[in-house]
This record gives sequence, C-alpha cells and structure tokens, in this order.
Amino acid sequence: MVTSIEHDVVTKAQPVTAQQVKSFTFDALPLQLGGQFGPVTLAYETWGTLNAAGDNAVLITHALTGNTHAHDAERPDDTKVAWWNPLIGPGRFFDTSRYFVICSNILGGCYGSTGPSSLDPQTGLLYGMHFPVVTIRDMVRAQRLLVEHLGVRRIAMVAGGSIGGQQALEWAVAYPELVEKVIVVAATAALTAQGVAFSEVQRQAIMSDPRWQQGDYAPGEGPEAGLAIARMLAMITYQSEESMELRFARREAQRLDIASPGGYADLGKRFDVDSYLYYQGQALVKRFDANSYLYISRAMDLYDVSEGYASLEAALRRLRSKALFIGIRSDFLFPAARVRWLAEQVNAAGGDATYVELDSPHGHDAFLKEWEQMNAALNAIKE
Amino acid sequence: MVTSIEHDVVTKAQPVTAQQVKSFTFDALPLQLGGQFGPVTLAYETWGTLNAAGDNAVLITHALTGNTHAHDAERPDDTKVAWWNPLIGPGRFFDTSRYFVICSNILGGCYGSTGPSSLDPQTGLLYGMHFPVVTIRDMVRAQRLLVEHLGVRRIAMVAGGSIGGQQALEWAVAYPELVEKVIVVAATAALTAQGVAFSEVQRQAIMSDPRWQQGDYAPGEGPEAGLAIARMLAMITYQSEESMELRFARREAQRLDIASPGGYADLGKRFDVDSYLYYQGQALVKRFDANSYLYISRAMDLYDVSEGYASLEAALRRLRSKALFIGIRSDFLFPAARVRWLAEQVNAAGGDATYVELDSPHGHDAFLKEWEQMNAALNAIKE
Repeated sequence: MVTSIEHDVVTKAQPVTAQQVKSFTFDALPLQLGGQFGPVTLAYETWGTLNAAGDNAVLITHALTGNTHAHDAERPDDTKVAWWNPLIGPGRFFDTSRYFVICSNILGGCYGSTGPSSLDPQTGLLYGMHFPVVTIRDMVRAQRLLVEHLGVRRIAMVAGGSIGGQQALEWAVAYPELVEKVIVVAATAALTAQGVAFSEVQRQAIMSDPRWQQGDYAPGEGPEAGLAIARMLAMITYQSEESMELRFARREAQRLDIASPGGYADLGKRFDVDSYLYYQGQALVKRFDANSYLYISRAMDLYDVSEGYASLEAALRRLRSKALFIGIRSDFLFPAARVRWLAEQVNAAGGDATYVELDSPHGHDAFLKEWEQMNAALNAIKE
Repeated sequence: MVTSIEHDVVTKAQPVTAQQVKSFTFDALPLQLGGQFGPVTLAYETWGTLNAAGDNAVLITHALTGNTHAHDAERPDDTKVAWWNPLIGPGRFFDTSRYFVICSNILGGCYGSTGPSSLDPQTGLLYGMHFPVVTIRDMVRAQRLLVEHLGVRRIAMVAGGSIGGQQALEWAVAYPELVEKVIVVAATAALTAQGVAFSEVQRQAIMSDPRWQQGDYAPGEGPEAGLAIARMLAMITYQSEESMELRFARREAQRLDIASPGGYADLGKRFDVDSYLYYQGQALVKRFDANSYLYISRAMDLYDVSEGYASLEAALRRLRSKALFIGIRSDFLFPAARVRWLAEQVNAAGGDATYVELDSPHGHDAFLKEWEQMNAALNAIKE
C-alpha cells in the first residue's frame, strides 16, 4: 500500500545523472543589489534541438528546491523522476520534437549551479553566507547569458511555477524583445506580507539551529533540524486546508518510525499529518543545502516586478510577449486572485494576457500535480 | 507615533498583581488519557458577587497564552491590560453588577495554575515533561471543581475564544445540567489537519532548540529561540492574508533594533513584517513557559468534542444550553465555515444554537480586537 506520506511527487529527490547535466561558466554577473559576482556556473539540461534560426527555445524555470531535471527522456511517463515530466516531451505541450527545451538550476541553488555550497575561488572555502544576496532578476540575468551561450536568439516560451513563475515574469519584463510567450504559473507581482512572514519563520528555524554556525557548517553537518522544520512549514503553505483535510483529516499516524526534528516522543498521540511533516522534513534535509534555502527563499520574498521602474504599470508596459497566467483556486501562498489581478494589469498596460485558473484543492503545489488541468490551461496560449 | 508593532493588544504581557489572583488547590484529577494527577492548583480571578442561589456565575475561559486577567476593574477602559476588558464590567455584556464572573488559568498553564513549570511535590523538581498530557476535557474538569468550591450551583454563561471556545463547548457537553448558556467563539468541533500541522511545526521549533533540554531547562534558561519561532508562526495563523496586507504590505522595517531569533543580519533588507514577528517572538519569550506552550497547544490539537461518544451527534445531543457560536470571516485557524457547521449540527441534534459571523479582516484574533462586533454578536444570546 502506498501511504499518503510516500505518495508525494514533489518531495522526491529527483536523481540527475552526471551525463545529462551540462554546465556553463562565465566570469561575472552584475547584481541587482549592487556589485558584481563571479565566476558563475549554471548547470542545465536540454531536450530537443535548437533550429538554425535559434528561435525555437523554451526555457523552463524551477521553483525553490527544484533542479534541472524538469523532464526525463528515458522515463517520460514517470511523474516522480522529473518535476514537469508530463508536460515535456515529444508531442507534449513543451514539445521536444519541435522545441529546444532548456532548464537550468538557478543561481544560488545546490544542484550544480553556483550557490552558497560552492567553493569560493578567492578563499578556497565554501561561500556559506559570504555568498551575495541574489534576486530573481539576477537569476534571470544569469539565465540570459546561458541561453545566449547556447545560441538562442529568441525564446519561444519561458514558463515556470512559483519562484519559477517569478523568473518567467521577470524574463518577459527584463527582455521583452527576446520572449515570444511567457507562462507564469502560481506567481504574482510580489509576495504578500503573509507569504514573506511564512518564509521568514522558515529561515529563522534554520538560522536558530546551532548547527547552522552562521552558515559555516561542513557538508553533511548542517542544520538538519532547522531545515526540516522550515520544510515542514513550507509543505503546509504548498497545500491547502481543503487538501490536507482530504488527505489527512484527523487520522492517527500509521507510521511511528519517522523521527521528528526535535526527536521527542509524541504528546498524547501522533497524527498522520505529523508523520507526514517529519517525513517531508527528513527528505529535504537529505537533498538540499540549508544556505541555498535561505538565499532562494529570500529571493522569492524580495521579488517585486515593479522594482527599478516608475510603477507597476511602467514595468508591465514593457511586455511584448503573449502572456498566460495560471492561478490555483486553493493557493494561499500565491493567491489566485492576485495572479488574476496581475494578468488584468498586464492587459490594462496594453499587453496580451490570458488568465486561467486551476480548479484544484491541492493549493500551490497543484502546478506539480494537476497534469490534465495544467495541459488544458497551457493550451490557452497555443497559437 | 505608535508603530504597527507596538499596537497589538493581544501580545502585551498583561500584568496580574498578586492581590487579584486567588488560588484553589485540590488533591487529584482523573485524566482523560488515563490515570490521575494531583495536587492541582488553579489560579483564578473573580469580579462581581455570587448570589444566594449560586446561579449567576459566568465562567470566562482563556486561549493558549492567556491568563486569569480577562478584566481589570481598576482600568476597565484600557484594552491592553486585560484581554476581554471591553466585554466585562458593570453594564457590559458580562455584567459584573449582575453576574459573578470567574476566569481561571488553565491546567497546564504558567500563570498560577499547575503546569509543567510547577514543582512536582514527589521529586522536588519542576515537572517539565513529566507533566501529564492534559486535554481540554481535563481543563474543564478542573474548572468544575473550582466553581463548585466557589459555591456555584449553575453557570449562567460560559464563554471563550479559540482554546477558550473549545473549553466552553466542552463545558456544555460534559456538564449540560450546569450550563445555561454557552458562547463558543472561533472554535470548532476539532482542529483541521492544517491547524494541527501549524501547531506541530511550532512545537518542533521549541523541541529542536538545544536549550529545551527535553523540557528540563532551568527557569530563565529555556528555549528562547524555539519559543520565539513558535510564536512568530502562531501570530501568522492568528491573522489573515488580508489583515497582514493592510498592516504591513511590503513596507520596509522602520525598526532594525529588534534581534531575530537566529541573530543573523538581514538578507537583502528587512520587511516591517519581519520586525513585527521578531518583536512578537521576544515578547512571548518574556512572559510564557515553553513547556506550557507545548502542552496547551497539543491540547488544542487533541480536542475533538465527539471523543468518548458514539458520534458527534451523540455528543451534541447532550447539550441543554442555549448556544451561541461566533465565527470570524477571515479566520483560517478555526475557519468560520466550520464554526457555522458546528452550530448547525447542534441544531440538527435538537439543540438551540445561533451562529453569528464577525465580518472582520483580522483573522482568528478578531475576538480580541473587534469589540463592537463582539458586543453585537454576544447580544444574539441575550434573553
């Protein structure tokens, strides 16, 4: 029997073999918050072939703990081995027989791109918290250098959900001349105060763990309890009251073998949702770097598409792309009403935006689960 | 200028002078989860006078970090010194010229009643985690012994919000013959899976703090960072997306002098909501015991009014009280729809329940803020 705990695609570490992942290194990146940084390596994967005109590229941008493995060409029907597998491949929406699909690990990440767990060539030590504060704009600037390096002259589509959606939006605003279509899923013009608050609690859990050591922990000796707690909270924000009720209700735990971050016995009893959260915390600790978590989650908080422009309207007036915004009814991290509002603002600024809402109980994570609805929504931007 | 941080009534430590608080000690209490426990002391305050018939008592039940000081007779117009001050007093809804109003600190608390920070007479040490897991039912059983001790023969009204609302509901189910009217505010038949999850993350933050020491910390040397993080998260769940947006939006912090639990510098910038959360965390650490937090929050999770009965209907059929249920539109910890549903179930079981909804953006905490609406709602149960 597959328990509710194990049946969770988004939480599986997605193994990426070395052969698949390529990398590109460049010398320096100017940073939004000042100064420049380098060298920078971006890890990436590609599927399909770039055409002679260099205009059939699709850029897929990933979420907080995601990686380059959006698609698995060898196991295209396994939804657990690659995070957007059902949407990518020959004949699928992101059609690899037609498009050159790229997915790079974001700047600040820990799946091959330069991040806090990388070696600082200047000191010979891991960056840790000496890594600069990077923004969604910086991540997108780095991606631009990558796609240019790959010979891309025009991006047919850029698409992503959550922080990936912020990146997609930023692409369309920063480089309007390069982006033909933009698909922003479960992302808004800027995170809400509530979203920032949830995010800050997560970071404080990491930074309060004595094993964090101001970020200077050795590999494998990081703030496991803090990161696990951060993930536990994040997992709540990725779901919804409705989906958690459907999934767990007040059932007692079947599995008592999963240790809690605090390691203490249960008080009274253990609920299924308790075990689930412990499991999710442990799973992330095994596959993710705590400092990367701090930097990327902060980039999510800091993102405001209007920053650096006279107004939100001024930012959105830059768009030349056909835009699709996909909201999720039950998402409370990036609420559907705010995704819809953003689409309306794009249109009010003279743009061409369509809004589609997924009618899902699964909250924010629906963009990683509701394959049929995602496909239907994506088709709204098909020419 | 009063900043948004300081202007928060529910988070003020409410000083209680020794003269006001009385206490009652009894030998033993049978516990819902088995065994018995004692001696038990309950701290309490009273206002007004019990009549000869002993039937004009009003019992006010407090929330997680609340205390006996629901009303301040010397400063009746100061909303910050007592948590339900505007509702209690001569001529007010809980009319102290007419009723004998009682508020006791709950079993497991740290404001004078026996709890984990009390001395275990058997060992001469603080209970810590040797304190038994207590339930809402146990808290109510203890309150019953207190009111009997005070000469109360019938409770004219029992009223409370949040965990206090769970207690009020439990009173009406456990002792239907004693309760004339019950007022359940922002509480439901049982917490949702999402609510349990938020609560568990908070407890894990406390129990993962090395200073927690399996609960055996010395007074003043407790898990301050863990408790602060728990409170930060709790404060989010007591508000709403809407109220946090109104209050903080994405404003930058005005106050940079408030240290975060992790003590690390800001990443990029500090939002006003970040400073607010740090402040709230610090404020609770100064006034509350971490082990009490664990026990009381778990009692909230464990509460299910139907437990021990054949069904929810069987439990609710016991009610003889006129019942008022007050939900809050924007509450996501105890969602209004579930409060309303509970009122409907009471009526379906043959009871006499009225449901009133506060139209407030302030989330769960509205029952400690929306005085006009609370008064209007309470009047729905006035004869």
